[in-house]
Amino acid sequence: MSVKEFFLSKNDIPKQWYNLAADLPNPPKPPLGPDGKPISPDMLAAVFPMNLIEQEVSSQRWVDIPKEVIEILYRWRPAPLKRAVFLEEYLKTPARIYYKDESLSPPGSHKPNTAVVQAWYNKQFGIKRLTTETGAGQWGSALAFACNIVGLECKIYMVRISFDQKPLRKTMMRIWGGECVASPSNRTEFGQKILKEMPDTPGSLGIAISEAIEEAVGDKSGKTRYALGSVLNHVMLHQTIIGLEAKKQLFLAGEKKADVIIGCAGGGSNFAGLSFPFVCDKINGEDIAVIAAEPTACPTLTRGPFQYDFGDTAQMTPLLAMFTLGHGFVPPPIHAGGLRYHGMSPLVSQAVKEGLVTPKAYHQIKCYESALLWARTEGTICAPETSHAIACVIDEAKKAKEEGKEKVILFGYSGHGLMDLLGYEKFLEGKLSEYSLPQEELQKSLESIKHLPRAD
Amino acid sequence: MSVKEFFLSKNDIPKQWYNLAADLPNPPKPPLGPDGKPISPDMLAAVFPMNLIEQEVSSQRWVDIPKEVIEILYRWRPAPLKRAVFLEEYLKTPARIYYKDESLSPPGSHKPNTAVVQAWYNKQFGIKRLTTETGAGQWGSALAFACNIVGLECKIYMVRISFDQKPLRKTMMRIWGGECVASPSNRTEFGQKILKEMPDTPGSLGIAISEAIEEAVGDKSGKTRYALGSVLNHVMLHQTIIGLEAKKQLFLAGEKKADVIIGCAGGGSNFAGLSFPFVCDKINGEDIAVIAAEPTACPTLTRGPFQYDFGDTAQMTPLLAMFTLGHGFVPPPIHAGGLRYHGMSPLVSQAVKEGLVTPKAYHQIKCYESALLWARTEGTICAPETSHAIACVIDEAKKAKEEGKEKVILFGYSGHGLMDLLGYEKFLEGKLSEYSLPQEELQKSLESIKHLPRAD
Repeated sequence: MSVKEFFLSKNDIPKQWYNLAADLPNPPKPPLGPDGKPISPDMLAAVFPMNLIEQEVSSQRWVDIPKEVIEILYRWRPAPLKRAVFLEEYLKTPARIYYKDESLSPPGSHKPNTAVVQAWYNKQFGIKRLTTETGAGQWGSALAFACNIVGLECKIYMVRISFDQKPLRKTMMRIWGGECVASPSNRTEFGQKILKEMPDTPGSLGIAISEAIEEAVGDKSGKTRYALGSVLNHVMLHQTIIGLEAKKQLFLAGEKKADVIIGCAGGGSNFAGLSFPFVCDKINGEDIAVIAAEPTACPTLTRGPFQYDFGDTAQMTPLLAMFTLGHGFVPPPIHAGGLRYHGMSPLVSQAVKEGLVTPKAYHQIKCYESALLWARTEGTICAPETSHAIACVIDEAKKAKEEGKEKVILFGYSGHGLMDLLGYEKFLEGKLSEYSLPQEELQKSLESIKHLPRAD
Repeated sequence: MSVKEFFLSKNDIPKQWYNLAADLPNPPKPPLGPDGKPISPDMLAAVFPMNLIEQEVSSQRWVDIPKEVIEILYRWRPAPLKRAVFLEEYLKTPARIYYKDESLSPPGSHKPNTAVVQAWYNKQFGIKRLTTETGAGQWGSALAFACNIVGLECKIYMVRISFDQKPLRKTMMRIWGGECVASPSNRTEFGQKILKEMPDTPGSLGIAISEAIEEAVGDKSGKTRYALGSVLNHVMLHQTIIGLEAKKQLFLAGEKKADVIIGCAGGGSNFAGLSFPFVCDKINGEDIAVIAAEPTACPTLTRGPFQYDFGDTAQMTPLLAMFTLGHGFVPPPIHAGGLRYHGMSPLVSQAVKEGLVTPKAYHQIKCYESALLWARTEGTICAPETSHAIACVIDEAKKAKEEGKEKVILFGYSGHGLMDLLGYEKFLEGKLSEYSLPQEELQKSLESIKHLPRAD
C-alpha cells in the first residue's frame, strides 16, 4: 500500500467561516435569561467582547476571517488530509477512509482553531486578559498557546483532580506563559465557598467555569473577559475551517463526494468543525450520512432530551436549547475527558433534532481496541476522544464491506494521545474499567431539569 | 511576520543515502577486536545481519535506498523545512534561521529514519526478532514502531531508572507491540549477575546493551539480531536523508548556500544525519561552519581524547576510534537523556578531528532558557536534546547581528518534548539543577582507558 496525503497550499486556506445557522431548516432557538425571555447581546458583554458576541448571534452564512487571523492560522494550517490505506487494507474494506489530521497543531488538537481567533478578537477589543476553565487540559493549553501569540495574559482554572493527575498539561500551559490554578481555588468567592463546604472536593467543570467567569466579570478595569472552548455558536463557526479545508482536499484526492462524515462529540466543536460544511450539502439534497460519536458513559445526544438547560453546573450561564443529561449530571471518569460534558452545542443539537446528524454511542473499551488497531496499522497514537470516531469508522468500513459498496468515509482526527498514555497503559494491562451509565443518577439529573422549557 | 515552510513532494524524497566515509580526507579507522587487530565483517554476524554489516564497512559514496524502504519512509517523510521567522524577529537578527522538523514522525524524533531501515534489512535477511536497549526511550519506541510496520518481534531493555521514571515511553513501545523490560532483568545471565551483585542498581545503558546483545546472540535458532540506534556507520548513513532533503528545501527557499549547520550530538546520529551532506560540500571547498552542540555535563567532543574505546560499559563491543570520556564514565542525570553517552560516532569523531566540525558545549539551564524562548516565539515544545542545538542557534544568530551579516543558519529540530515535560516543569519552578562535570570521576574514567590505543 502506498501512503496518500493531500496538502493545500497556504493560499488555499479558506478565507471565510461557514455558519450553519443560516441554513438550518428551522432557525436555532435563542438562549434564555433567568426570566425565561431571550437574552439580548448586551447581557453577555461583561463575559465576552462585543465582536465575538456579534458572531455568536449572527445568521450570516459566510463570515470573513480577518487576514491577521489567517496569518496566525498559517502556523499550523492548512492541516493535511490523509487516507488511512493501512487500516483499509487490514479491514479489507472497499471503503476509502480519509481523515483530517488536527493533531499537528502545537497543543496537539483542533482547539487552537478557535483559541487563536478568540484571543485575537479580544485583543482587538482592547482586552488584556482572558480567563477560562479546563478539564483534561486540551482547551487550557490551546488558549495559553493562543494568548502567548496574540499578547494576552491567560488564567486557567483547571479541575483539581485533573490538575493533580495530569500535571504535565499544566506544564504545557506554563511553557506558553499561562497561569494555571487548581479549581476550586481560594482566588474567587465561589471557589472559597466551595472549599469551605467541601475541602476535599475533586472539583468539576461547572465549578471551574464559575470561577473563571467570576474573575472575568469581577475585573473592575473591564480589561478581562472569559473564553469558552466549545458549545457556543462562534466556537462552532471558527472550527468550520476544518471541514472547509477537507472539502477542497477530498476534491484533490479525486473524490466527487463523501458518503459518511464522522466526528467525536463532547461539547460539539470538533464535530461541528468537520461536519457543518457537509451538513450544508445534505440540506441542499446530497446523500450523506453524518455521524456524531459519543461515549455510552455520557450519551448526551443518544439519551438526553432536547430542552433548555444551563451550560454549567452552577447555573450561571443563560439557558441553552440543546440535548442535555442535566447540568447536575456527573459522567463516569472515562479517559476521554473532552467528551464528559452534560450538554451539547445548540447548533449540533438542532442538526440532530432535524435529522441531519445521527448520533451513536460507543463503549470505552471498544474505543481503546480501535485506537490500538489504528496505532498498529496507521502508526499514530490518537487521543481517547478521537478513538470514539475511529470505533465508528471501523463499524462503517465493515458495513461497506458487507454491502460491497465503495463508500468514501471522512473522519476528524481531532488530536494525538501523547498526553493521555495512561489510559492506553491501563487498557494494555487489562485494567481499564468499562463504565455503564449510572441510571439512577441520570434519572435524578433529568428529573431536576424537567421544569425547564422543552426546546422541541 | 509570515510563516514560511518548505515541503518536498513524495517524488522528491532522496533515492540514495550519502556515506561520508567516501569523502573524509583520511579514511576512518577500523574497529579493533580484543586482540587489537581490525575485526572482519564475519565477527559481527552474530549481532547484525550481513546486509547491514555491508553498509557498516562500505566506502561507497552513495548507497541506494530500496524502494520498499522509501514506501515506509513516506509514512512521515519528506519532513518539512521551516523558517524560524518569529525567533528571528525576537532576536532582531539579520540571520535567516531554518530548521528541519524531525518531530513529526509518530515516535516524535529522527530515530525512526534508521529504525525502519534496520528492521526492513533484518526482515529481508530472514530475521524474526530484534533486541535493543533504550535509555530515555526515544530509540526504543522508534524501533517498536518500525518492527510493527515491518512485522518483527521487538524486545527492548530499558534502563531501570528510566523505566520507573518515564513509564509512558514504555506504554508507547507496548502500543506498537514491543516488549519492554527493565534492565538489569532476570531474563539474561548478565542481568542476573548484576542483580545479584547490586539488587538496587538503577541500571545503565551499558548493562542494557549487554543484555540485549546476550539475548540476540544466545538465540540458537539464529533468528534474532540486535539493533543500535546511533554511533555506528550504517546508522549515520540512514540518517543522511535528513540533510539531503534539507539541501533541496533550502534551494526551494531561495538560498544558494547555508553558512552555519547546527545539530545536537549524543551518539551522533541526529547530528550526522543533518550535517554530513554539508560536510561533503565543506570538503569540496565551500565555506560552511558545522557545529555539534553537546552538554557540558557530558562533553565528549570538547573534553575527551580521540582514541579507541568500547561502545558499552561492559566492554562487549569492538573497540571504536572515537572521542570518548571512557566507557566507565557515568554522566550526571541531565534531562537530555539522549546526549548522555560517553562516546561518539567514529565518523563524527573523525570529522571533528579533521577540523570539518566544531564542537561546542552548553549548560542545561541555558538550554532550557533557549527552549522556553523557542516555545514562546515559534510555538512548539522541543525535546531537551534539541534545546542544545537551539542554544547554539541563538548564539550564532546574535553573532550574525553583531557582525551585521545575513547568514543562513540551518539546524536539526530532532524531536518534540511532549514526553519530557518534567524537565520544563522543574525549570519553570526554578528547581532545575545545573550539573558541573564531575572532574574526579572523569579523570578516573580517562585514566582507565589510557592503555587503549590512541586513534590520532
